[in-house]
Amino acid sequence: MTKDLAFLRGVLHRKADGETSMPSLAEIGLNHFLPYLLNRIAATWNTDMAGELRAFDLTTPQMRTLAVLGINSGLTINELSALAVTEQSTMSRTLDTLEARGFVSRRPRASDLRVREVEITAAGREAFDAFWPVMFRHYGQMFRGIGEGEFSQFVATLQKVLRNNRLSGESET
Amino acid sequence: MTKDLAFLRGVLHRKADGETSMPSLAEIGLNHFLPYLLNRIAATWNTDMAGELRAFDLTTPQMRTLAVLGINSGLTINELSALAVTEQSTMSRTLDTLEARGFVSRRPRASDLRVREVEITAAGREAFDAFWPVMFRHYGQMFRGIGEGEFSQFVATLQKVLRNNRLSGESET
Repeated sequence: MTKDLAFLRGVLHRKADGETSMPSLAEIGLNHFLPYLLNRIAATWNTDMAGELRAFDLTTPQMRTLAVLGINSGLTINELSALAVTEQSTMSRTLDTLEARGFVSRRPRASDLRVREVEITAAGREAFDAFWPVMFRHYGQMFRGIGEGEFSQFVATLQKVLRNNRLSGESET
Repeated sequence: MTKDLAFLRGVLHRKADGETSMPSLAEIGLNHFLPYLLNRIAATWNTDMAGELRAFDLTTPQMRTLAVLGINSGLTINELSALAVTEQSTMSRTLDTLEARGFVSRRPRASDLRVREVEITAAGREAFDAFWPVMFRHYGQMFRGIGEGEFSQFVATLQKVLRNNRLSGESET
């Protein structure tokens, strides 16, 4: 593994000198290609969550919406879509269901009556709080064997990558 | 941020002593909750790729299938689904399209004629190779300002997380 990592570092930080060529994906290797690893881990997490959520009668978009509103209530559908990493059409249906179940309510924003904002209800908070211990247990499992220093470095790098994505600005909502 | 990170490290590595309680998601904060960051980054990457792929007349599952087969040709649909992080029903339709376009072919595996394996054609390799420079450019942008040491540490942590997921074995295919 160390050899492969050295190679990858080499190719990513190689100076453009006209003699070196772009590595192929096969040369990098799937298990050293970060977008692959990130997608694989996110997909596994999402599959695990979807499985656990069934027992709580919640879908993934519903859970994410309650999670986001539990931290910051009073968001617009646009803000919710971005923060819950859920497409706007899905978010629209999700909010209808959550409102029918009494988990969220919608009202005009006090500072601008044309803007409708979504608030979480006490029942909505209870629904997320019931699920949270399950989520937190999986979270702990995800980082088994990873110490404090490594963990905080990992968070810091992820935040840099997220900022790079924002700066490139090609898909920010 | 440093204060928040310290807090997060504290809660994740706190000993169970009966006096400390589980932190809420609001206490951790969305931007310090790893599954959120991972999902956000993966979703942004996927949206960027989907946008770029349109000009190459490829869908995301098609591109992923060609990427995986370009490294390791002769896989079954099950193996391809897992490696391309694509649901099996989607993979089945994707292979039909790729075969119709002459990018893959299917044949019985020599060692077990009941198993059908998928191989990439020369045209399939060309289709992926044409897209790869675009993907590699985005890859470089994703890691702007991240040095060699930080990069290799990040890969190592991601691989540990992926192994933890495999060990929990709840969603491996």
